[in-house]
Amino acid sequence: MKNILKILSICVLIFVTSCKEQAKSDSESSTTNASLVDTNDIERIEPPNWWVGFKSDSLQLLVKHPNISDYEPSVSYSGVSIQNVSKGNNSNNYLFIDLRISETASADKFNITFKNDNGEELIATYELKERLKSAEDYFGFDSSDAIYLITPDRFVNGKTVNDTPLGKEGGSILQEQTINRSDNYARHGGDIAGVIEHIDYIYDLGFTAVWPQPLLTNDMRQGSYHGYAVTDLYEIDPRFGTLEEYRTLSAKLREKGMKLIMDQVANHCGLYHWWMKDLPFTDWVNLQENYEDNLENWGNDFTINSNHRRTTNQDIYASKADHEGMSKGWFVATMPDLNQKNPFMAKYIIQNSIWWVETVQLGGIRQDTYPYPDKDFMSDWAGAIMTEYPNFSIVGEEWSYNPLLIGYWQEGANNKDGYDSNLRSTMDFAMQNLVVEGVKEEESWDKGLVKIYEGLANDFYYASPKDIMIFEGNHDMSRIFTQLDGDVTNTKMAMATYAVMPRIMQMYYGTEILMNDFEKPGDHGLIRTDFPGGWEGDAVNAFTGKGLTDEQKDMQSFIKKLFNYRKDSKAIHDGNTTHFAPFVGTYFMYRTFGDETVVLILNKNKDIITIDLNYQEEMGLKGRTLKNIVTGETLKWGEVIELKSKGVTLLTTKL
Amino acid sequence: MKNILKILSICVLIFVTSCKEQAKSDSESSTTNASLVDTNDIERIEPPNWWVGFKSDSLQLLVKHPNISDYEPSVSYSGVSIQNVSKGNNSNNYLFIDLRISETASADKFNITFKNDNGEELIATYELKERLKSAEDYFGFDSSDAIYLITPDRFVNGKTVNDTPLGKEGGSILQEQTINRSDNYARHGGDIAGVIEHIDYIYDLGFTAVWPQPLLTNDMRQGSYHGYAVTDLYEIDPRFGTLEEYRTLSAKLREKGMKLIMDQVANHCGLYHWWMKDLPFTDWVNLQENYEDNLENWGNDFTINSNHRRTTNQDIYASKADHEGMSKGWFVATMPDLNQKNPFMAKYIIQNSIWWVETVQLGGIRQDTYPYPDKDFMSDWAGAIMTEYPNFSIVGEEWSYNPLLIGYWQEGANNKDGYDSNLRSTMDFAMQNLVVEGVKEEESWDKGLVKIYEGLANDFYYASPKDIMIFEGNHDMSRIFTQLDGDVTNTKMAMATYAVMPRIMQMYYGTEILMNDFEKPGDHGLIRTDFPGGWEGDAVNAFTGKGLTDEQKDMQSFIKKLFNYRKDSKAIHDGNTTHFAPFVGTYFMYRTFGDETVVLILNKNKDIITIDLNYQEEMGLKGRTLKNIVTGETLKWGEVIELKSKGVTLLTTKL
Repeated sequence: MKNILKILSICVLIFVTSCKEQAKSDSESSTTNASLVDTNDIERIEPPNWWVGFKSDSLQLLVKHPNISDYEPSVSYSGVSIQNVSKGNNSNNYLFIDLRISETASADKFNITFKNDNGEELIATYELKERLKSAEDYFGFDSSDAIYLITPDRFVNGKTVNDTPLGKEGGSILQEQTINRSDNYARHGGDIAGVIEHIDYIYDLGFTAVWPQPLLTNDMRQGSYHGYAVTDLYEIDPRFGTLEEYRTLSAKLREKGMKLIMDQVANHCGLYHWWMKDLPFTDWVNLQENYEDNLENWGNDFTINSNHRRTTNQDIYASKADHEGMSKGWFVATMPDLNQKNPFMAKYIIQNSIWWVETVQLGGIRQDTYPYPDKDFMSDWAGAIMTEYPNFSIVGEEWSYNPLLIGYWQEGANNKDGYDSNLRSTMDFAMQNLVVEGVKEEESWDKGLVKIYEGLANDFYYASPKDIMIFEGNHDMSRIFTQLDGDVTNTKMAMATYAVMPRIMQMYYGTEILMNDFEKPGDHGLIRTDFPGGWEGDAVNAFTGKGLTDEQKDMQSFIKKLFNYRKDSKAIHDGNTTHFAPFVGTYFMYRTFGDETVVLILNKNKDIITIDLNYQEEMGLKGRTLKNIVTGETLKWGEVIELKSKGVTLLTTKL
Repeated sequence: MKNILKILSICVLIFVTSCKEQAKSDSESSTTNASLVDTNDIERIEPPNWWVGFKSDSLQLLVKHPNISDYEPSVSYSGVSIQNVSKGNNSNNYLFIDLRISETASADKFNITFKNDNGEELIATYELKERLKSAEDYFGFDSSDAIYLITPDRFVNGKTVNDTPLGKEGGSILQEQTINRSDNYARHGGDIAGVIEHIDYIYDLGFTAVWPQPLLTNDMRQGSYHGYAVTDLYEIDPRFGTLEEYRTLSAKLREKGMKLIMDQVANHCGLYHWWMKDLPFTDWVNLQENYEDNLENWGNDFTINSNHRRTTNQDIYASKADHEGMSKGWFVATMPDLNQKNPFMAKYIIQNSIWWVETVQLGGIRQDTYPYPDKDFMSDWAGAIMTEYPNFSIVGEEWSYNPLLIGYWQEGANNKDGYDSNLRSTMDFAMQNLVVEGVKEEESWDKGLVKIYEGLANDFYYASPKDIMIFEGNHDMSRIFTQLDGDVTNTKMAMATYAVMPRIMQMYYGTEILMNDFEKPGDHGLIRTDFPGGWEGDAVNAFTGKGLTDEQKDMQSFIKKLFNYRKDSKAIHDGNTTHFAPFVGTYFMYRTFGDETVVLILNKNKDIITIDLNYQEEMGLKGRTLKNIVTGETLKWGEVIELKSKGVTLLTTKL
């Protein structure tokens, strides 16, 4: 009986290992995979491979295997040495091996041999790869970029074969979920293949980067479609596709000169993460002692939740209790809070991020829920990545309308407490909101356009305003068209303002066709509606234009002109900014670089109004010919400009 | 005929000079005044005197006299030498004499002799005085202070003799104005004598400093009662009293250990300032060329006005046009904008401020409309004062709800543009407003008490939070009782919060008896209502309590207890601050210094609620006895605290 069980378990192991290796398969080195499988006696080693030539010569392997803590690992490979071996204090099934990879180590496979006191031996083949390009050639996004944010489950169902994926080992619930497009909180079947198919569409709209929400496995009972409850940090969710497809997406984007941004989550994992039932340390996740209870309550144990009082990160008066309640509490009860103060967890997360940058050749990282993890760790994390990839970019998400906090998190901030995040970019929730209010509100002394004017005036505080990311919307907030009460003119005014201001720009998929959540404003499922044309048989197809209303077509064309102009505009990417205080319901913003001047004019007046341009003569445009970026019409800049009706006028000196 | 005119003009000169000297009379040196009058042939020399022993050895005299620019001045006095003599480019009637006053100069009078090419000679006696106390002994206000702000015309009419003051020379309109208490924009007769009479009342309320709105002459047609349109920067408005009374007020306050704060205005003067009809330079005031037009239009020439876009001070994108429109425009059309970029004007303002500090032995300056003058000048101005008086304090007024701007102006701010204001204190309009909203709003995730909590969390940004001035109200905003819709409980909650937070505290006269502007909210005349009991025959007398409602008496008693506790509380003055994120409609703020802990509890719950105190155990109060500062009751700090009804509970460990 025992032998049968052993044989069975070996069979399962081989099957599982080959499944995992399939997912990890690497086109550049696929020829050597066979030998790797042959010698892998170990259930899990992470990172699954590494590279030679990093600035940091250390690598910490997490080894998971039944009773592996009884074994002593050894390596005999030139340039690679074991520096330290650590055990978890909560499980015998983990070893953490610190390797030193010297400059002399060559890229190849080598064996790690594990021996126990009974003379039993396990062997794993580990691979050090050659890096495909130099560290300096990993360019992150910057203010020249416009980023298209996608909820992958809701964009395009490129392959139906992965709609009902194979089950996973060990009580997986993944296979229980089938596509149900009538349920906005269920999976709808969108995948990586679907994004790959429509790169040209995104490119033609004028975007230069794609940020899909997380694509890693979310083996969760509910709401797995959004991707933020990761249950395996080294695996693409099979419903989204394969690692190979993810790499193809990146490669095809690069062919177009576009960047792939990965959405990462350092704060938490999903409640069904593989390690949750066998945690290596007693402090691997925060409030770990509450885990079993919480699992049983499945998301109803709210005492475990974060207090979400994010200001405790900066507040010099915050109580210790609130500070811990914020950083140790779980984001939601279905997402265990990773304890980055455990040094093994800290290394795990940093290496995981680097592994993805290098494996997929990323063009940037978006870090979720930035203020929730331990902030010193976050600085180390970003610092480690930016040290390896000096031209890379990371943007951190803090949902705050307070410029003090937006600025606090940006690298180079003159923070009194000395904190430096190493984070090139933060998200500008403040300006997102102020543009909406500015466009929507009746004009008065302190309402309407002045909100945009005074909002941008806060840029004096930021370490680098143009490296901050502005966005018109995202997967967590009402669609911009909903925020603007379905007013197309207002939406165009807002979109142009976002696109022209000194920022990195991000748009959420579907804004170009006025997608909205009028039916139930703010409803997450509805905000993340399927993109029409992404599913076979869709009555409307936004890729071909079939079935779009005139309003939708008009907006799609507007976005296309706006972002295609932006793509090559040095004035928008790097230009000086000058703006004029709102006056008689108008606001003028100028971006200037060399001979190129872009003029954004927002006008709230319904009837014709003539604006004296002499007040703005410092801009030096008098007598020059300017072209309307949207209509293509030209005009000569004179003493006055006549604005015919409410809306945005976007002009350029580039004819 | 010519001779008669000459004799007449000499008579007028003698009369005027003696009037002015009367106002300037100085009790310490009044015995020498006779000789000064005897030898003063000059219409006006400012500053009217100076002192030996300043750190700066330079003094610039403004000399005004018909055709004085044809004269050459000379001085023959040991230790005093003329360094430079300058003429105005717009009038022959000015000379600016730069004196060097060396360390060897002794305090005494000396002659300045003016000779012209025709051999004509004019002589003026000038006095250098001994300083009465050392520069280090001028202590400004700080977080140990609670300041009582008074609109002097509306507080107490101490003397009726100055209600219909003597006229002034040269087309003065001062004498045209008589007291009219039924017109809220007319003079009501309050004066310095009235404040002096009631120092004990202010002291007994628990205040440690008095800030009267400007007391300098406002020889204006309208609205002169508020004091911000100064027409003579070296003269107390005769309707308020005399320089001697002002000095007495300061002396009597000092006897009580209290400070006198002077309200100064560097940005503008009144349209009828004496120099406006004979301006020394073509750029003495900004937009000077528009002056005559504006005078005729008497306040209706709005094109001359500032655009009031104060963010241009910081905004890296502000247009030059807007920047000039802000700093050169007039605050209102009846207040010419002083051009501090004219170096003679700059010196004039700085010396004027120092003259008042030294003459009246001030305990601080409040500078009006701080962001309107040239900001580099303002830094020089504050720097010059603080160099002479290192322990002094200045607070600058910027009406902004934006912490970025509040912080920008404070000395030591880590501003990216390198700007340092030399200003110890700024005004916290942001927190004033957030406390009102926090107390008033229904509790929700981002409304109510959390506004106070997150507002104070912004303190991480400030160079020195406790040196910022909080206030419950002032002469420009609706009374706090009006802002809080006449809710006494809410008003007490707000007042206690202001008084306990780490700030300098300021209250507007009358708040202690619930003065309000319900009748016409925000109306300036109404906000600045007469203090009951300040006029003979008043039916209600807040000084004696006669005719006050029970609600008013209760509030007066509350304020008295609050501020008398605050007066000696090191915990409030200098203590550590710890607060807890609002929870079930309550907010706890702790101030701790040594053995003294003050606990502020705001409770929004109408019904009894029991709060678990274990969450706050880090404060170390368990088992200690605390006293209610308002009721005097004691309680033992246990596992829980029971809050009986909505309101503020203020506790201390000091029994």
